[in-house]
Amino acid sequence: MKLLRKKTGLAVGVIGVGRIGKLHIQSLVQRIPEATVAAVADPNLDAAKEIGEKYNISSVYSDYQKILKDRKIDAVVICSPTDTHAQYIQEAAAKGKHIFCEKPVDLSVKNITAAINAVEKAGVKLMVGFNRRFDPNFQKVREMVASGAIGEPHILRVTSRDPEPPPPSYVRVSGGIFLDMAIHDFDMARYLVGSEVVEVYAKGTVLVDPEIGAAGDVDTAVTTLTFANGAIGTIDNSRKAVYGYDQRVEVFGSKGMVNIGNNTPDTHAYFDKEGEHASKLLHFFMDRYTESYACEMRLFVDAVVKNGEVPVGGRDGLLSVAIALAAKKSMQENRPVKVQEILG
Amino acid sequence: MKLLRKKTGLAVGVIGVGRIGKLHIQSLVQRIPEATVAAVADPNLDAAKEIGEKYNISSVYSDYQKILKDRKIDAVVICSPTDTHAQYIQEAAAKGKHIFCEKPVDLSVKNITAAINAVEKAGVKLMVGFNRRFDPNFQKVREMVASGAIGEPHILRVTSRDPEPPPPSYVRVSGGIFLDMAIHDFDMARYLVGSEVVEVYAKGTVLVDPEIGAAGDVDTAVTTLTFANGAIGTIDNSRKAVYGYDQRVEVFGSKGMVNIGNNTPDTHAYFDKEGEHASKLLHFFMDRYTESYACEMRLFVDAVVKNGEVPVGGRDGLLSVAIALAAKKSMQENRPVKVQEILG
Amino acid sequence: MKLLRKKTGLAVGVIGVGRIGKLHIQSLVQRIPEATVAAVADPNLDAAKEIGEKYNISSVYSDYQKILKDRKIDAVVICSPTDTHAQYIQEAAAKGKHIFCEKPVDLSVKNITAAINAVEKAGVKLMVGFNRRFDPNFQKVREMVASGAIGEPHILRVTSRDPEPPPPSYVRVSGGIFLDMAIHDFDMARYLVGSEVVEVYAKGTVLVDPEIGAAGDVDTAVTTLTFANGAIGTIDNSRKAVYGYDQRVEVFGSKGMVNIGNNTPDTHAYFDKEGEHASKLLHFFMDRYTESYACEMRLFVDAVVKNGEVPVGGRDGLLSVAIALAAKKSMQENRPVKVQEILG
Amino acid sequence: MKLLRKKTGLAVGVIGVGRIGKLHIQSLVQRIPEATVAAVADPNLDAAKEIGEKYNISSVYSDYQKILKDRKIDAVVICSPTDTHAQYIQEAAAKGKHIFCEKPVDLSVKNITAAINAVEKAGVKLMVGFNRRFDPNFQKVREMVASGAIGEPHILRVTSRDPEPPPPSYVRVSGGIFLDMAIHDFDMARYLVGSEVVEVYAKGTVLVDPEIGAAGDVDTAVTTLTFANGAIGTIDNSRKAVYGYDQRVEVFGSKGMVNIGNNTPDTHAYFDKEGEHASKLLHFFMDRYTESYACEMRLFVDAVVKNGEVPVGGRDGLLSVAIALAAKKSMQENRPVKVQEILG
Repeated sequence: MKLLRKKTGLAVGVIGVGRIGKLHIQSLVQRIPEATVAAVADPNLDAAKEIGEKYNISSVYSDYQKILKDRKIDAVVICSPTDTHAQYIQEAAAKGKHIFCEKPVDLSVKNITAAINAVEKAGVKLMVGFNRRFDPNFQKVREMVASGAIGEPHILRVTSRDPEPPPPSYVRVSGGIFLDMAIHDFDMARYLVGSEVVEVYAKGTVLVDPEIGAAGDVDTAVTTLTFANGAIGTIDNSRKAVYGYDQRVEVFGSKGMVNIGNNTPDTHAYFDKEGEHASKLLHFFMDRYTESYACEMRLFVDAVVKNGEVPVGGRDGLLSVAIALAAKKSMQENRPVKVQEILG
Repeated sequence: MKLLRKKTGLAVGVIGVGRIGKLHIQSLVQRIPEATVAAVADPNLDAAKEIGEKYNISSVYSDYQKILKDRKIDAVVICSPTDTHAQYIQEAAAKGKHIFCEKPVDLSVKNITAAINAVEKAGVKLMVGFNRRFDPNFQKVREMVASGAIGEPHILRVTSRDPEPPPPSYVRVSGGIFLDMAIHDFDMARYLVGSEVVEVYAKGTVLVDPEIGAAGDVDTAVTTLTFANGAIGTIDNSRKAVYGYDQRVEVFGSKGMVNIGNNTPDTHAYFDKEGEHASKLLHFFMDRYTESYACEMRLFVDAVVKNGEVPVGGRDGLLSVAIALAAKKSMQENRPVKVQEILG
Repeated sequence: MKLLRKKTGLAVGVIGVGRIGKLHIQSLVQRIPEATVAAVADPNLDAAKEIGEKYNISSVYSDYQKILKDRKIDAVVICSPTDTHAQYIQEAAAKGKHIFCEKPVDLSVKNITAAINAVEKAGVKLMVGFNRRFDPNFQKVREMVASGAIGEPHILRVTSRDPEPPPPSYVRVSGGIFLDMAIHDFDMARYLVGSEVVEVYAKGTVLVDPEIGAAGDVDTAVTTLTFANGAIGTIDNSRKAVYGYDQRVEVFGSKGMVNIGNNTPDTHAYFDKEGEHASKLLHFFMDRYTESYACEMRLFVDAVVKNGEVPVGGRDGLLSVAIALAAKKSMQENRPVKVQEILG
Repeated sequence: MKLLRKKTGLAVGVIGVGRIGKLHIQSLVQRIPEATVAAVADPNLDAAKEIGEKYNISSVYSDYQKILKDRKIDAVVICSPTDTHAQYIQEAAAKGKHIFCEKPVDLSVKNITAAINAVEKAGVKLMVGFNRRFDPNFQKVREMVASGAIGEPHILRVTSRDPEPPPPSYVRVSGGIFLDMAIHDFDMARYLVGSEVVEVYAKGTVLVDPEIGAAGDVDTAVTTLTFANGAIGTIDNSRKAVYGYDQRVEVFGSKGMVNIGNNTPDTHAYFDKEGEHASKLLHFFMDRYTESYACEMRLFVDAVVKNGEVPVGGRDGLLSVAIALAAKKSMQENRPVKVQEILG
């Protein structure tokens, strides 16, 4: 493994070593021999140093620009706060780096468009971190829809509920439930149905925690999506499912239906005087999507190394945000909103 | 059984011997010793005679008024076409008969209100045929919500898909998917959540059969319901699920979630080179709700015989229609519609 | 229904109005218009009278011989204690009655053979009450094995556990777990595999209740069956499963495997902080096999009325007892016992 | 990771680089930073070199003795053919190496005893590779039995079926289905029930492939185990389940029952006109037990590094073989065989 890295590895710089940054570094180091984490940067230098030492990373910085300026770095993985993404993408593109950026790319259509333009101009690759596309369950559903097994898609159902809400401080800067949480479901909707969303109607409310309302957000939402191919989708979101991370989808069509259940730590069933009992769902996304995170990073490295297509591009990043903004507007004005109204 | 009937039976007259009429007669004869089917009436006299002979029913008429005029008849079961329900209810009430009426009571709020007023004035009982409330699966969900097992309800999900669409001739006079089909789901929504629906947003489209569109209806619909207690519901309907009659609900709340799956003819699982295979769902409502039809008739007879409350009253019949009318208007005008706007 | 009975009904006399006798009477009265329960007999005359009144049965006796002597009776249903079965069969056959007899026919090969001979000589029909063969789950398994879906059967697994043991007084006269309880599973084994059992090895022990041991029986047993076609079967029995009546089978073969799960009162799943929870199994055979009891009685009436084959004959009654006796001997002597050794 | 290895790693030598050897090397390199694979040996030097290069291993030998003689090596992982295990264990113990040995330790009680004695004399650790103990499903069952959730264990059921038989050449030297395949289930039986097996009755036959019979083995077997605590177990084995690797267990007791299902690559369910369909089981042990292999190696390294107890010791290796030998003898002589008869 070490030999391979020395000989052929893609040199990657990771910007931001929070929870997701650490996860990507771990995947790159342990699972992807074709890449080396050559540098990390985080304003919190101690955090960066800790990671650097743990994974034996050569260069550790507080300033991300040092990564961009390093000519030995081939690609960057952007895991910094959302409001820096669009800017970093443009700067990295200008330096000729390939880019993996966490979702959402930005909360504004204008900024995302600027980032996409910079990437296209520079001729580098940009992949957006919609990791769930690489989960075996969701992939199986997509595969069955794409194969025609269910015929023409008519109805999409998505249930997406977190085990516990983020702190109000986070909620306040998150952009709200649609841009922060449901955005994954909007991307999944486009991916599974294979058609673009043209109209959105969203209903949201505060039922979990009044502090989330005080922070200007809702914690419970139901969204109706109308697709270009005529299909209708419905997504329900909650910030707090006491029974664990609830992630299910169903696509119903003219020839059949496919759905997926949740993942659990084991398959046991226990029977006693009260009835049957089984394990709780996996707790949250770090447990549930471990493999899909590793997989998306491998696909990014592959796309760069083999000069192939990235599986989730800038346009995917743009459209998921546009749907989220439409949902937000729809909820605020209690009327259906066309995605085109957001894209302008 | 025969002795009991002679001695104590409630004398029931059944108006209309179509599919549902026959089912109710069978339940009354075979399962409910406390009642006797004393008369049947149907404009199609041959059909009435056939049933009369099969079940040894004393009086067989083409004219339902003969049943109303028969002083030995205690109660009527109205299974005639929808547009006759409100009138028959009023006439039966005037004659002092207790009334079981199939859903929907009528397609107009005004007519239903008139029927309810007549019933109240006459002091007779009126029960509306929302049989699904008596299905063991739905009852279990209601029981768990009512017991507080899921805490405060936040999200309701209903999937309700028929195995095949009715003929266009039926569609044309049915009142449309919301009044004909989803009305069961609207009643179920009120029943399960235990709170009234205040606003409806419905999206409908023609994906199954263009002839349904030509008949002025849609065959695929997604409806968002807002409840007085703050919960949000979503219902998806299709007129054609090739894999059978798909009837699932889920209620999610602050302390947990409860849902139900479909019923199948057996519990077998077959494993071969391709994977695992199980039985198709039960085909349609006659197979799926056999027990709940028998149960609702027993509860009607019990309520009359013991002078108790009917479990589904005129107001339930009214509100389900009001929600359906709101859904229809919402779809037509592509905007959320308040139920109060319909009730006036 | 009443008319039909008057015109064409098979006149049935039921001997014994214990739990199973009552069940068969109810099926005959409510579900099988082609038959009439014309007489019942039970040494406990009060019990017989109570049933007679409830179901409006013309003749009620304490002496079963009155039924046999009644020339208007076409068929008898024998639900008296096991040690009377063989004798009653012979007497009923001598009077030209068709016979439905509860299992086991008798606890001795010699007596069963005598009963079968009497039936053959008289040219009447004898059906043995292995009702589980008519349960939709078991039927589906048999159908799949017979269709070749699993190829050649290699392994049979049966789990058969009662929710609670019978009282020691019953255990003492029951013939033991193999003749009283596992006999159903031995019949099922022959039925599902479609091949005869040639050798038995049984291991039994007292783990549930020492009083069962004191009564000379075991309460927990595992039996290995070797079939003529080479397949191997294994059955596990317990007198006490605290979670309900556990009735599962699995047949594994060269092309696949089929198994069945248990039946529950509903399909709900409840999720809370502890995990997932579902309903307890149906409690016992009266709940679990309601439909299969009704079905076997209908098939008996059909076979008599249409002069067809009974689906479970005297030989089935004989062989299941022979296997049970082999199991008992195997357990006592801790060695494999050939069924032929029992049949002699 | 690299730094850690340099500083503190346990130096491991792997003997045998077949399928399992490679798997253990991969686990050690990618998942266990506390260990370094310092040397590999295999008579097939090319295979050893290939692995050595892939994982950057310093020393590559054809002769395993070079590993034993290397004073820098702390522990050995023995993945060579079964008939070498006992000898290598003794030699490694003599050199003071800690030992991880694949199952079975040997096919003879005498040789295993000699190996255990050598290990005890040398004061080194010996762990035997019953990896399934570390699978989350089996662990959950053990945990529930140990916690008392099912009360006293009464019945154990194990289903263990391979997707396809090994080649006859392998079968010939494997020691037979009990020593080669069912041995895992015998270990699992002891582990799950928490009591020793005292008697065995096994029935085996050739139903899958006559060539397996020609090679002196059976391919289908059912084994009854009697435990010291009175519980009875039954295991069914087949060399060929066309639907994939079938690995299920169930423990039934006085207070309840716990069982586990199989693992599948995803949780999808597909519904079409034929019914419901789900994914095939994972194909074989490399897919099914990936995590448990990694886990057992980590526990071995932990036990050595922290000087703790190994979770599966020499006695576990001995007893599983003794049960397998008893099963073989039982099948050959068609009589129950006490394990003590084998242990002598």
